[in-house]
Amino acid sequence: MAITSLQDLFEHTLQDIYYAERHGLQELGDLPGKTDSSELKTTLEAHGQETKKHIERLEQAFKTLGKEPKGEKCDAMVGIVKETKSLIDEVEDADTRDAAIIAASQAIDHYEITRYGTLVSWADLLGHKEVANLLRQNLESEKDSDGRLTRLAEDHLNKQAA
Amino acid sequence: MAITSLQDLFEHTLQDIYYAERHGLQELGDLPGKTDSSELKTTLEAHGQETKKHIERLEQAFKTLGKEPKGEKCDAMVGIVKETKSLIDEVEDADTRDAAIIAASQAIDHYEITRYGTLVSWADLLGHKEVANLLRQNLESEKDSDGRLTRLAEDHLNKQAA
Repeated sequence: MAITSLQDLFEHTLQDIYYAERHGLQELGDLPGKTDSSELKTTLEAHGQETKKHIERLEQAFKTLGKEPKGEKCDAMVGIVKETKSLIDEVEDADTRDAAIIAASQAIDHYEITRYGTLVSWADLLGHKEVANLLRQNLESEKDSDGRLTRLAEDHLNKQAA
Repeated sequence: MAITSLQDLFEHTLQDIYYAERHGLQELGDLPGKTDSSELKTTLEAHGQETKKHIERLEQAFKTLGKEPKGEKCDAMVGIVKETKSLIDEVEDADTRDAAIIAASQAIDHYEITRYGTLVSWADLLGHKEVANLLRQNLESEKDSDGRLTRLAEDHLNKQAA
């Protein structure tokens, strides 16, 4: 698809993050089963539920724009997921694996934070007020998730792993 | 390589970001030539210079740990770079391309922010004080770069593109 305006780029990036959220949910839905820590398991399960809400909000955003929800293959998320899977399989110690799971989850959150940050700013500029509001909710949710993972890592798992 | 301790995971992640920084520099070194905005060109050229400093600090970190600098293929950065290149080629309008270049540069910065954030926290826990200090400088540099790009986008390019 040729991109000739900020509106085109906005829609393209919306499709990118829609693919990314769904790809992460599909490929990494088994992450909670890979930890022995009940605290981390609960956090990852909650993250999965939030991802489903993000996807619903994105579908609402497409609808508001009068578009069908559509994903555009996101090579960045494909790469992050591939790296996450292979790394977690390489870790043989449970506490170290937890540290790796947290780091990988934060890498995914950060990819989504940067994309939502950009999308919110473009939606504001393009006058898509309702869509900007939906995307802002996803952005805040990703930041909260990143903060929770940082606290979990600092308080608990990294100390164990060390 | 089997990873059996936080020290192993730390070294693995150091190799990951070393590959990522060098891959980004090598593959996206021509980004400044893709914009007509002298402000964005200057920002991107400065970013390239900072990336070279990050690589030097990483080499110093390896040396401090008594290791040879070594990269481990980072699928995440390979994906981000691939996505960046194909996106920028699809954009036909100069102002919209600038918006895409900024968004892509911020995605790269955010990947590096999350990795350096994790590495600093692990280096502290593992007692690698000098290495933590080097990594913290790279982390702060990435955050500064992300902030500069946000301001550039908000003040100038997005408004033009809209």
